[in-house]
Amino acid sequence: MPSFYDIDQVEAFRQMEYPAINVYYTMQNGQDGMWIGYSCDYMRTVSKSHNFLITETNAQGTGWSSQNQWPPYDGQLRQNMYAFLSGGANMVEYWHWSTLHYGQETYWRGILGHDGQPNRVYREFQKGAKELDKIGGQLVNLKKTNRVAILFSHDSKHALDYMPYTDNDQYKVNMMYDALYRQNIECDILPVDKPEMQDFSQYDLLLVPSLYVATDDLLLKISDFVKNGGEVVMLFKSGYTDYDNAVRPVLAPGPLAEACGFTYQEYSSINTLTLKPNDIGASDNTVNTWMEFLIPTTAKPLAAVDHKFFGKWPCITENQYGKGHLTYIGTVPSADLLWKLISRAANRKNIATVERKYQYPIILRSGTNMSGHKIHYIFNYSYETKTISYPFPDSRSLLDDQKLSLGKDIAIEPWGVVIGEEK
Amino acid sequence: MPSFYDIDQVEAFRQMEYPAINVYYTMQNGQDGMWIGYSCDYMRTVSKSHNFLITETNAQGTGWSSQNQWPPYDGQLRQNMYAFLSGGANMVEYWHWSTLHYGQETYWRGILGHDGQPNRVYREFQKGAKELDKIGGQLVNLKKTNRVAILFSHDSKHALDYMPYTDNDQYKVNMMYDALYRQNIECDILPVDKPEMQDFSQYDLLLVPSLYVATDDLLLKISDFVKNGGEVVMLFKSGYTDYDNAVRPVLAPGPLAEACGFTYQEYSSINTLTLKPNDIGASDNTVNTWMEFLIPTTAKPLAAVDHKFFGKWPCITENQYGKGHLTYIGTVPSADLLWKLISRAANRKNIATVERKYQYPIILRSGTNMSGHKIHYIFNYSYETKTISYPFPDSRSLLDDQKLSLGKDIAIEPWGVVIGEEK
Amino acid sequence: MPSFYDIDQVEAFRQMEYPAINVYYTMQNGQDGMWIGYSCDYMRTVSKSHNFLITETNAQGTGWSSQNQWPPYDGQLRQNMYAFLSGGANMVEYWHWSTLHYGQETYWRGILGHDGQPNRVYREFQKGAKELDKIGGQLVNLKKTNRVAILFSHDSKHALDYMPYTDNDQYKVNMMYDALYRQNIECDILPVDKPEMQDFSQYDLLLVPSLYVATDDLLLKISDFVKNGGEVVMLFKSGYTDYDNAVRPVLAPGPLAEACGFTYQEYSSINTLTLKPNDIGASDNTVNTWMEFLIPTTAKPLAAVDHKFFGKWPCITENQYGKGHLTYIGTVPSADLLWKLISRAANRKNIATVERKYQYPIILRSGTNMSGHKIHYIFNYSYETKTISYPFPDSRSLLDDQKLSLGKDIAIEPWGVVIGEEK
Repeated sequence: MPSFYDIDQVEAFRQMEYPAINVYYTMQNGQDGMWIGYSCDYMRTVSKSHNFLITETNAQGTGWSSQNQWPPYDGQLRQNMYAFLSGGANMVEYWHWSTLHYGQETYWRGILGHDGQPNRVYREFQKGAKELDKIGGQLVNLKKTNRVAILFSHDSKHALDYMPYTDNDQYKVNMMYDALYRQNIECDILPVDKPEMQDFSQYDLLLVPSLYVATDDLLLKISDFVKNGGEVVMLFKSGYTDYDNAVRPVLAPGPLAEACGFTYQEYSSINTLTLKPNDIGASDNTVNTWMEFLIPTTAKPLAAVDHKFFGKWPCITENQYGKGHLTYIGTVPSADLLWKLISRAANRKNIATVERKYQYPIILRSGTNMSGHKIHYIFNYSYETKTISYPFPDSRSLLDDQKLSLGKDIAIEPWGVVIGEEK
Repeated sequence: MPSFYDIDQVEAFRQMEYPAINVYYTMQNGQDGMWIGYSCDYMRTVSKSHNFLITETNAQGTGWSSQNQWPPYDGQLRQNMYAFLSGGANMVEYWHWSTLHYGQETYWRGILGHDGQPNRVYREFQKGAKELDKIGGQLVNLKKTNRVAILFSHDSKHALDYMPYTDNDQYKVNMMYDALYRQNIECDILPVDKPEMQDFSQYDLLLVPSLYVATDDLLLKISDFVKNGGEVVMLFKSGYTDYDNAVRPVLAPGPLAEACGFTYQEYSSINTLTLKPNDIGASDNTVNTWMEFLIPTTAKPLAAVDHKFFGKWPCITENQYGKGHLTYIGTVPSADLLWKLISRAANRKNIATVERKYQYPIILRSGTNMSGHKIHYIFNYSYETKTISYPFPDSRSLLDDQKLSLGKDIAIEPWGVVIGEEK
Repeated sequence: MPSFYDIDQVEAFRQMEYPAINVYYTMQNGQDGMWIGYSCDYMRTVSKSHNFLITETNAQGTGWSSQNQWPPYDGQLRQNMYAFLSGGANMVEYWHWSTLHYGQETYWRGILGHDGQPNRVYREFQKGAKELDKIGGQLVNLKKTNRVAILFSHDSKHALDYMPYTDNDQYKVNMMYDALYRQNIECDILPVDKPEMQDFSQYDLLLVPSLYVATDDLLLKISDFVKNGGEVVMLFKSGYTDYDNAVRPVLAPGPLAEACGFTYQEYSSINTLTLKPNDIGASDNTVNTWMEFLIPTTAKPLAAVDHKFFGKWPCITENQYGKGHLTYIGTVPSADLLWKLISRAANRKNIATVERKYQYPIILRSGTNMSGHKIHYIFNYSYETKTISYPFPDSRSLLDDQKLSLGKDIAIEPWGVVIGEEK
């Protein structure tokens, strides 16, 4: 049961013959596939084989008490099995087969319940297992080559938890992942603290949650990435302290100042504030919690709050630096603001132009199978049947062996999935 | 100061020559007599003499600080004295006579306050005491023969507290008592864990709060009670574990399956959900917190929630089994739903047909005194004078020595009581 | 860093050659000068010289984390410097000059930030410092002779904290100070527990927060103060216990009964209740939390709550005793009720008749400088320019060397101050 936050995953998996993780998530109305996506996108970068096993995941309701028992709606168990496969998993195993009759995990319920009899969940498990018997060979060992990465810094997360700026989540990696996920931009998650994980040459767009703790070297690699034509979307407090978590005794953001195109000397806690009209295009035009008083040198101000005092400084800027751009968000943006700022950068690089036509609850995931064919998963994370036009080149629907034609309508059942193989 | 929940009352009172308890309750707007009723209805079943003493109860405001000082409104102290007597108490003693001038109980105020002078509360105490001088002999040693019992299981309460399904009260005995009390159905409260307390032959209706821990034997006694013509209203999780709190490895509800007329394999936490239209007739047609997915064999579904997924199974059923009925509530019902489901069972047995014409804040309590005469208490738990038609055969009003005629209007003063003796 | 509540300040400062304190307060929208005023009004009565040093106060944002960073708006740092001087401070020193780069106080930010460069706050500090170079000699060693005092009792505060009557603040000294401050009545704060601090001969009006613990001697001094023509506004629970915190075994309020003109035997916690119409004139006509059931002997009832039970007793009374009056508030009044009750007493003594024409956010503070001239500070605690007519005799504006004429309009900039010297 690895935690993504507290363990040195790079080091841990170096010693494992075959990487394996346990992933638990929310079912029923909260089922959205996001935490499964996050887990897989992280695992791929730290696993040597690029693929991995799921050794535990939800069957029926879970928990160390009888509270918060949320067994899956019809379809959800099987949908999650395919969500794991779409992220690179090669096996999905449940905790556990049957259910204990006493002790701490009495209500951590398995495929079978206390009665040991076949049940609704068992029958759904059975259906998925039979499908995999038939098509599993076309799904396993999926490979991906993503153009986008999130730089995940354990050190920054720990330092921010130690010296927090909010009562809520200090390190907004999930917020950034969510903004990508819901607009169907696939990404890798790079644990960036180690020098061997700092090769960005594969990517066109980097998302940087508050990179509070960083070596000069890492910050310069990010600057160089921009200079050489890359796009970066970066959150507040990045570059503020050095590798030992000592604040840099220079104008912030230190080694990032040139790529960012501004300096700042001050910041403030803020309540939720509205931005002055701007051309970012977010429906929720607010920021909250924290604001840096940015003083642009070469950066273009994108937004400033509508406030007598705080409005004197921009809080979101975009800097053309060399051949690329660095978008800096010196505040906690609304989810929609972050989405739109990422789209803006993705547009400049033509990233996921097809996929971004669809949005959550329709989620698209793709990869290449062992035969070298493209595999496309289309998930419907809702209780309504959804009809969309098939967005990919002509394919074969693996679950029902039908033809899928580019632009032709397909219906995806509630909590369902369609899997296409291009060939 | 016995706790009803943490102490083995049956065993404790076996060793006492004369049973005695301390009861504290809410005064002012919260005064409703319910906790006094509960305490007395419990004490009668564990006391050998069927009567008991109150050795401590509220005088003025109470507490281990100066917070939550709620001294009685005019009339309330005397009303509570009669409430105790109406439940079978033979004495009411206050904690305490005077009030301490320092220490933990500085604000646990007695009949006299810190000044040691007669006061408003003293004068009310004095009034009640003088009345008892005159009529006490007709009130003490009251006997009751109730047709309804609540089965109270210490073991179930502790097991549910240990493996909870909610943040709120795990064991809904008070909720069940409240539903009886407010519609004027008198009951006994049976601590049912010991075999010697499992004789139900006196009763026509049993209310069963989640009987989570139970021997097969107890469950079969309840089944037999139904088969022989009894009415049972039972809450979720009953029968789920055995006497050692191990979940039964069979289809739930185990030994109760036949009497219940259903089995179930699954359950879920739920938010507050509305029921589909049904003929239970509750104004608050909602359930919350917990729902079992009942699969009827012989039971008749009474209600199912209005929800795509959860609505596939009934959550309240009624099963004719032998000559009786078992009403099962596989969810946490609204207070009004529970009230109506109890009425439904009470109607089939013509229980409290007279008394149920009145409702809280008018509360009726009856019994038989030492002369073999029926004694009827009519309480008004409100700040408004209430006028009702006297519901009992012609009687003598003990407090003012007037005649009370069946069907004739009587006025009960705010926080007042009328006591009739049939003769 | 002295606490006003936990330390025996009288004793502590007896041993200091020159009294000095550290005062931290809220900036940005919360800046109102009140806590600075309170601190200074307290320090003057315990300092031997009548003047004192501020050895620490806010520069930029403060805190032991990066949360709640609220650096000053433009003008606020300088405004607070003058607020300290207006209360009798002879020096204002900041914590601290520069800002630490690691450790607990990384975000307890000084005049200079982590970059060590001049910044916005530094420039404002510089402006104030240059002004003091010029006019400081006319401002230091300010003396005041106030006609109003708040009697602060450490012992009562601790006893109420130990045996609380509310979840909120037990000891309403700040509430009373606030009511004075916002209507521009200057006062001293007397730590009244020691006999040597019980000389009230200088004063015309005493405000008494719940004087729960007191010697008979102190209570008689307060009674004598009234008898000799003084005005007292006193809160509930005063006089209830003796010097050892034992409740007096007599009719409350014990030795105060004659001056108060009532006794009481009972009290109750209350929710927020509305008063019956009365002539106190408060817009918020409510009381809350606590109510004593006052039984007047000579006192005139000023207000009673609108409630069947509690309305039987007044909860606010006014007693003419000898040549003075004692206003007793046997409940927690709304802020506006307290304000109006204080005004009522102040009117009888013609206290602050000029100053009370102005209200917060315009705050007036006055004193006499070393040359024997009157110094008047006029603060604007808002983000709007305020124009008022100058309320004092013709003066010289020290900051811009202009003439200030009685009744002539002057504009005070946002978070600004005007300082006039009569001469």
